[in-house]
Amino acid sequence: MHTNCELCQMTDEKAIWSNEKLRVIAVNDAAFPGYIRVIWKAHVAEMTDLDENERSLLSKVLFIVESTMRSTMKPDKINLAQFGNMVPHLHWHIIARYRDDSHFPESIWGIKQRDNNPETLLERAQLAEVMQAHLCQELQQAKL
Amino acid sequence: MHTNCELCQMTDEKAIWSNEKLRVIAVNDAAFPGYIRVIWKAHVAEMTDLDENERSLLSKVLFIVESTMRSTMKPDKINLAQFGNMVPHLHWHIIARYRDDSHFPESIWGIKQRDNNPETLLERAQLAEVMQAHLCQELQQAKL
Repeated sequence: MHTNCELCQMTDEKAIWSNEKLRVIAVNDAAFPGYIRVIWKAHVAEMTDLDENERSLLSKVLFIVESTMRSTMKPDKINLAQFGNMVPHLHWHIIARYRDDSHFPESIWGIKQRDNNPETLLERAQLAEVMQAHLCQELQQAKL
Repeated sequence: MHTNCELCQMTDEKAIWSNEKLRVIAVNDAAFPGYIRVIWKAHVAEMTDLDENERSLLSKVLFIVESTMRSTMKPDKINLAQFGNMVPHLHWHIIARYRDDSHFPESIWGIKQRDNNPETLLERAQLAEVMQAHLCQELQQAKL
């Protein structure tokens, strides 16, 4: 554990599920209710720092997140990203994107395109709660 | 094939390798010499539109790209992204990032942070040529 790495700590995260290798959290971002982060517990930087079994485990989790997000939140697009430029500790962003969201078609780190409709956002925040509950179940049942 | 989808066509791409399912190209971006795109040939939008074998094939290719990029170009970080907000045809960006590149630590689609040093950029463009040649060999030998 690196004491100066914020992803080595578990601070005020909303935990969805974890096992001995990784943890899945709901990201608290008001503009993007369907936003999940998958964090590898060990302090490694890249996918190719993992062995094949570890990569396969992480991929399975990513696809369970994507699949659950699609079925519960019906987004227009899923965005997947592994950057780690600011925090070089392996983590993935999985984000439900909608054509009318504040940044679409830009990435969520790009330039804002419009304001979110508050009612739409509220509906999606409720869907996100449903998604998170399903996700916990799906990951539990997958016996990873 | 969707005639209005730019990724269903092969335009002025620099092809590295392809098989019946996907193609690997070098992206022509002067600011980011180590930039590879992996494009699924069929017009699908998401990873979870693929079956397990197809996902596994695509993942293998991504990790061969990452691994070859790391060994030949020694980047400070690898960036992986699958967005498709503008072109909803499954494709992955794999980008070699350096602490002194024009956008670091922002994503390459974020706000520019500084000018690239022209000499450094030239050196990296030469490394990228080496990377591309190795990548072709690695993918060929992997018998995917």
